[in-house]
Amino acid sequence: MVTVNKNYMKLPGSYLFSTIAKKVNAYQKAHPESRIIRLGIGDVTQPLAPAIIEALHKAVEEMAHAETFRGYAPDLGYEFLRNAIVKNDYKDRGCRIEADEIFVSDGAKSDSGNIQEIFGLDNKVAVCDPVYPVYADTNVMAGRTGDYNSAKENFDGMIYMACREDNGFLPEFPAEVPDLIYLCFPNNPTGCAITKDQLQKWVDYANKNGSVIIYDAAYEAYISQEDVPHSIYECEGARTCAIELRSFSKNAGFTGVRLGFTVIPKELKRDGVSLHSLWARRHGTKFNGAPYIVQRAGEAVYSPEGKTQLKEQVAGYMRNAKVIYEGLKEAGYSVSGGVNAPYIWLKTPKVMTSWDFFDHLLEKANVVGTPGSGFGTHGEGYFRLTAFGTYENTAEAIDRIRKL
Amino acid sequence: MVTVNKNYMKLPGSYLFSTIAKKVNAYQKAHPESRIIRLGIGDVTQPLAPAIIEALHKAVEEMAHAETFRGYAPDLGYEFLRNAIVKNDYKDRGCRIEADEIFVSDGAKSDSGNIQEIFGLDNKVAVCDPVYPVYADTNVMAGRTGDYNSAKENFDGMIYMACREDNGFLPEFPAEVPDLIYLCFPNNPTGCAITKDQLQKWVDYANKNGSVIIYDAAYEAYISQEDVPHSIYECEGARTCAIELRSFSKNAGFTGVRLGFTVIPKELKRDGVSLHSLWARRHGTKFNGAPYIVQRAGEAVYSPEGKTQLKEQVAGYMRNAKVIYEGLKEAGYSVSGGVNAPYIWLKTPKVMTSWDFFDHLLEKANVVGTPGSGFGTHGEGYFRLTAFGTYENTAEAIDRIRKL
Repeated sequence: MVTVNKNYMKLPGSYLFSTIAKKVNAYQKAHPESRIIRLGIGDVTQPLAPAIIEALHKAVEEMAHAETFRGYAPDLGYEFLRNAIVKNDYKDRGCRIEADEIFVSDGAKSDSGNIQEIFGLDNKVAVCDPVYPVYADTNVMAGRTGDYNSAKENFDGMIYMACREDNGFLPEFPAEVPDLIYLCFPNNPTGCAITKDQLQKWVDYANKNGSVIIYDAAYEAYISQEDVPHSIYECEGARTCAIELRSFSKNAGFTGVRLGFTVIPKELKRDGVSLHSLWARRHGTKFNGAPYIVQRAGEAVYSPEGKTQLKEQVAGYMRNAKVIYEGLKEAGYSVSGGVNAPYIWLKTPKVMTSWDFFDHLLEKANVVGTPGSGFGTHGEGYFRLTAFGTYENTAEAIDRIRKL
Repeated sequence: MVTVNKNYMKLPGSYLFSTIAKKVNAYQKAHPESRIIRLGIGDVTQPLAPAIIEALHKAVEEMAHAETFRGYAPDLGYEFLRNAIVKNDYKDRGCRIEADEIFVSDGAKSDSGNIQEIFGLDNKVAVCDPVYPVYADTNVMAGRTGDYNSAKENFDGMIYMACREDNGFLPEFPAEVPDLIYLCFPNNPTGCAITKDQLQKWVDYANKNGSVIIYDAAYEAYISQEDVPHSIYECEGARTCAIELRSFSKNAGFTGVRLGFTVIPKELKRDGVSLHSLWARRHGTKFNGAPYIVQRAGEAVYSPEGKTQLKEQVAGYMRNAKVIYEGLKEAGYSVSGGVNAPYIWLKTPKVMTSWDFFDHLLEKANVVGTPGSGFGTHGEGYFRLTAFGTYENTAEAIDRIRKL
């Protein structure tokens, strides 16, 4: 008799952003005249930079001729891309990472979801609370947790590291030592950054306890402060305890292009086994490479023109972040994030829950954001706005919120 | 203490095609003057068709402007693509499949590897022998089998359905009823096809026993005979027992473009649960869509120009198949496949094992093929050649083999 994966039944309701989409669509249908501004899902709005468009056209043209056509890509990704990554993201920042420690993928969401597969089901997993749902949900789906505890509104057997106002939205070492620790900095959803000294403490902790840190650095391009690390490998000893996930979605607007990569240093071993070789096996067996044309687009991100254009793109989004941050602050909201990240995390007013505030904003200001409680129990009473809109929309949204 | 997924340790050695690549590279290094012809890995050689190139350029251009830029794709894939698939691959063949039963992905390899996740670990899995390694390996990695049995050269706890000369390379109902049955027709590696009547028997068997068939139809574009079904949904009752995997790699040369899809009918339930909803959850949580530009390329596959151009492309490869099939037959080899599939399956001469013959061909004819034993125990004594080379290379390779 066929059985299904019962762990899926533990997941309550649908994916956060599907619920939001349904609510927004229903409202728009009932109020067709409303001009809704979406600062909810973290999708970008600026078109691809000219250097990337040029690289894409060129690669498409190569695919049109037998002499330059490319079929299956090499397992790890094309060398031209891995070399550009190593030089720009690591060597230039003083990190020792080799090209064969880079695994090119179709994006950080896939990697965030799949990386847990190389670990045993008996590992204790720690996530921040609030957190990007994929880390937690994929461990639930694999069976690394107990049931959903509706009183606590989280999963039995998972370690939640509360990120609250009183600890500056930074996780603290949990009472029980975790095996796998998911960290994301600059953080989604709080927009909070971690300093190099603070991150070093986590690296030391992981090395001391034999834990593995899965470090999501998808938002590193938004870092504006000197003491905030762009990669966990800037910390001493990270090569023996950390896997890093990187994305092209937010630094280059690739949300609809799909490209990312995972870094696993060769000396990272657990249980006597190289995690690099396990991931290589997973990558080679269940994935068949990112498209050639997309990998060429990724290479263009690191070209001199690409870099200049994308710096400007990121600066544009950060101007939005400033508009949101300062506008809300002036309107009396308690806000954080937005300095090293494209996310602003605000406290909902008075006794409003996150979803109350979602409905309030949608109905009264026609602005869509993301309820903090969708990211975890400690997100309750908070709300996320993203800086990925256009400048005009962002300014108007904040104007509308201020007038409430 | 961190533990790794020990199921990975059950997999013997490296992925088949990595081993072949290493052998070929070593030979080329030792014999730099040799002009090696590769008819091994199933990678295509013809460039993308003009209609597809045009669609790609157009979509790239859309990504360059804010008004037409596209970020995250809808979870199931863009409607324009799903509608084209439904019309051309299903409605036009008399199959009832709706657009929201299609899940667009980055290729059939990912889907073949990931689909097992929605099932419990206690399901009994049946695969053909020989078989495309991904079906078996990903079930091993998930823990659905016992250890590798080196005497038997396969995995304990997995059901192998022998495909031999004496049963026309078609699987027979196994002694023990399996829960999950992987079928691939036209078959990789044997190149063998199944008739509609024969496939109907499997559908009836699955419905009677409550099994689920995972049907890989990646090679359907190569079907030349009337009574061979292009989709399992041509069979009565398949909607209650079958999941279908489809690829754009071989019908449109997308091996380096990456696009595929999975079909799960809404009435397909097991264990009281809709498999469609489970896969939707998996797809939405661990995957973030195929690139917009690639989905537009997929749409162009179904345009009138695209269809005409791709028919010609497939005909080109099938001309190669004929050259291989007839050339080897004239040279005294026992051959099958090649009529409804781009693969030719030949019996190795005399007492040569598959790997002996691999070395023999590589050294004496500088031709690379794939040893049948790499696909399973019952592949021993066989060898796969693919029709995906250029016409000139294919003809020369066969010429060299005939002269041995």
